[in-house]
Order: sequence, then structure tokens, then C-alpha cells
Amino acid sequence: MQAQPDFDDLKVIAFDVFGTVVDWHGGIASEVERLLPGVDGSAFALAWRAGYQPAMRAVMDRIASGEGGFTLIDELHLNILEGVLRDFGVTHIDAAGKRELNRAWHRLPAWPDAVAGLTRLKSKYIVCTLSNGNIGLLTEMAKNAGLPWDCVLSAEVFKAYKPDPRTYLGVAAVFDTSPGQVMLAAAHQDDLAAARACGLRSAYIERPHEFGANRPKDVSAHPDNTLHARDIGALADLLGC
Amino acid sequence: MQAQPDFDDLKVIAFDVFGTVVDWHGGIASEVERLLPGVDGSAFALAWRAGYQPAMRAVMDRIASGEGGFTLIDELHLNILEGVLRDFGVTHIDAAGKRELNRAWHRLPAWPDAVAGLTRLKSKYIVCTLSNGNIGLLTEMAKNAGLPWDCVLSAEVFKAYKPDPRTYLGVAAVFDTSPGQVMLAAAHQDDLAAARACGLRSAYIERPHEFGANRPKDVSAHPDNTLHARDIGALADLLGC
Repeated sequence: MQAQPDFDDLKVIAFDVFGTVVDWHGGIASEVERLLPGVDGSAFALAWRAGYQPAMRAVMDRIASGEGGFTLIDELHLNILEGVLRDFGVTHIDAAGKRELNRAWHRLPAWPDAVAGLTRLKSKYIVCTLSNGNIGLLTEMAKNAGLPWDCVLSAEVFKAYKPDPRTYLGVAAVFDTSPGQVMLAAAHQDDLAAARACGLRSAYIERPHEFGANRPKDVSAHPDNTLHARDIGALADLLGC
Repeated sequence: MQAQPDFDDLKVIAFDVFGTVVDWHGGIASEVERLLPGVDGSAFALAWRAGYQPAMRAVMDRIASGEGGFTLIDELHLNILEGVLRDFGVTHIDAAGKRELNRAWHRLPAWPDAVAGLTRLKSKYIVCTLSNGNIGLLTEMAKNAGLPWDCVLSAEVFKAYKPDPRTYLGVAAVFDTSPGQVMLAAAHQDDLAAARACGLRSAYIERPHEFGANRPKDVSAHPDNTLHARDIGALADLLGC
């Protein structure tokens, strides 16, 4: 398929990672069931993930009020985990076990189309992460799952989490491009809307089973996105890779 | 070859890039001769590179005195280039030509052993850059030369240039390791000494022709380094990869 002419100046495709490139729900659920037999892995994964946005907002509020510094997601995940373990009544796990469970986020499996799709896109564009995950987490995940990033960019580099404009504009600054030469690819409309507000292009990736096979999510197209793709391979088709 | 037992806990090998992984002298000299016919490419490359350390020191001095912020190497290279062009009496180059020449640093060729050696090391360790070059420069260089980094780390991430301890200790922090679980590989003894002072291990890589085939440099072993290798392939041999 030929790329549309108006993608001629596109230079960078930055990917959201959790949910868009890797299956956090399936990965966490199976590691929870492996490490904590008898616990409902799916419910545990949903509860753990639900703590993520409030924890990031609390960090940004503390930074804004001058009361704290930037915090890596590994540390936020571990703090959230304490509460989830309590809520699920899990008491038979020591500190080393908690760290091992926390590293499940470093071992999340790629969606089946991700490695091949990214490899195709990489032939034509700079393909990087733009995730709130920390650099170490994203690097180990990529090594484990075979994700062929040209570069691992993270909230850790910009000292701000998405949807802070510093993250989206930071990608353009890193590669010395205009915002419009960068496209964010994500399975989340709010992430894409924040990127568009900064002048980036946006590609929605359908991940109907992000929250589990039994909890299909709405993946209908939003007219403001530049592109809408079933998966990363379909995005490569649309961009003529 | 078997790795020595005391490398069992080694996790990350961070590479200096200019001179260690890529041939800045040969790359710049040939691009200068292509873009500025009649100019002595080797002398030009040496003069350009000679401006690098003083420019970084000036930035760090300005930051320390509160008079300026962190500056990307792309910008320092462009500033130094202005003076070198003047010194070489080159007046027939416009702003676009200067930018094109400045991007020669993004296109430096890898030393012949680099891609295969890094690929071997990557099978066992996290293999990343630790360069004063900016992320965009290092990413485009890697894409162009096929360097298979797991992660691109840069002075830009730590907002300090080597030999500032924040850079060496920053690598350990990113990967949540002790400093001793990180090894710096470099063709420069001063870089390695600064890394050792932070508790990192050190591997010297011989690059006798870093300054050109006619200007061999001393590549003798320093007893304080953990390892001494002829090239990156030899480092992979020493580490049993």
C-alpha cells in the first residue's frame, strides 16, 4: 500500500506501551496466578492497574507543591501493590516476593502483532517508546519480548508523566523535529487527545481485550485521530511500510 | 571461552560511543572532504573534536553559576563548527550547509567489529550507550550504522556530561543495580578512571587509529581496568558471550 503524501515529513512514531504494545492484563494476571496460587489474577491485575493514574497524579501534585521529586513507576507499582495485597487478603509474601511480583511489569508479553509491526515501521521511521514506565522497566521488557525500539523514551527522561505536554513535546525536541513530524500511537483516546493538543499526529490502535477477554472495551474510531488501525501491522500498512 | 566467576553479577555494559564504537575521525574527515572539497578533512576533524571538551566544561561552569541550562551536543558541535570554518578560511557555506555538515556526527561509521561484538554482548547483558552525545544524535547514528543498543543513555538524560559522577551512577540507578554491576567500556582512560571512582567496572577498548591512521595513539593496558580488549569482539570473548 502507498503512503499518503501528507506523511512524507513524518519522522518519528512514539508508542504508548502498556496496553498498546504489551498485554499488561494478561501478563500480570498470569504472573499473579503463578506467584500467588488461589488469587484471582484478572481481578488482581485490574486493581493494581487502577492505582496507577491516582499515584502519578499524587506525584505531580507533590512536585507542583515543592514537596517531592519525580518518582519511577517501579516504585509506584510497589507502593500500589502493598494496598492490593492487603485488599486481596494476601499475607504470605515477603519483601523479596513482592519485588519479584513487581518485576512482572518488566516481563509483560507483547501483543502478537507488535514485534513484526514495529520492525516494519522501523524501516522507515524512528520508532520509540513514550511511556510513563521507567527506562529500566521498558528496556528489560523490550529485551524480554524482542521489541525492536530505536530508542527508549520515558516520563523518566522528561521528569513528567503523560499527559503532561513536556512528554509529547519532549519527543519532538529530542529528535529536533516539529511536533507534527511525530505521531503518537496508542490504544487510549485520552493519551492521543493530549498529544494532538501539542500538535502531534495520532494513531489509535485497537486493543479490544486490554482489560481481559471477558471485558471488551470500546474501540470505535474517533474522527480527530490521524489514523485508526486494528493493530500495529495495520498501522504499517496505512503508512506504506 | 568461559566467563570468570566474578562477572556473574554483571548486568549492564555501558559504552562510550565517539571513538570507542564509531570512528569519528574517519567519518568527519570523509564528510568534510565530500561537502567542502579542497579542505584537509583530517585536520578539520581534529580541530572540530578539539573544541568539544572546552565547550562542555563551559556549559557545566555556566550551569554551576546559575547562568545557563544544559546544552545538547548538536548545538555545541554547531557552535564549534563556526570557529573551525573561520580558522580553515571556509566562507562558501550557508546555514543549511552547516546544519548538513553538523549532522555528519549522526552518520559516523561503526568500527568494523562493533555491530557483531555488541550483538554477542547483548545476548547476556543489557548493552547501552553512555555518551555525551544527545539522544537524537545517538539514535540516528545507531539506526544508520546498525548498532543494536538495548537502550540509548546520554548526558541528556542525566543533565550532566561525563566525567560527572551523575552519569556513571545514573546508569546504575536506571537499571536498579549496584555500581559494580555496571561496566563502562571505553577507548579513553580518563573516562574509565572516572567510572571506577564511582564503583563501576571498566573495560578498555583499543582504538589505535582513533585520531587517524597516521596518528597512532598509546593503547597500552592500565592495571586498574577490570578488562583490556583489542576490540568489542575481544570483550565478548573475555566475558564468555
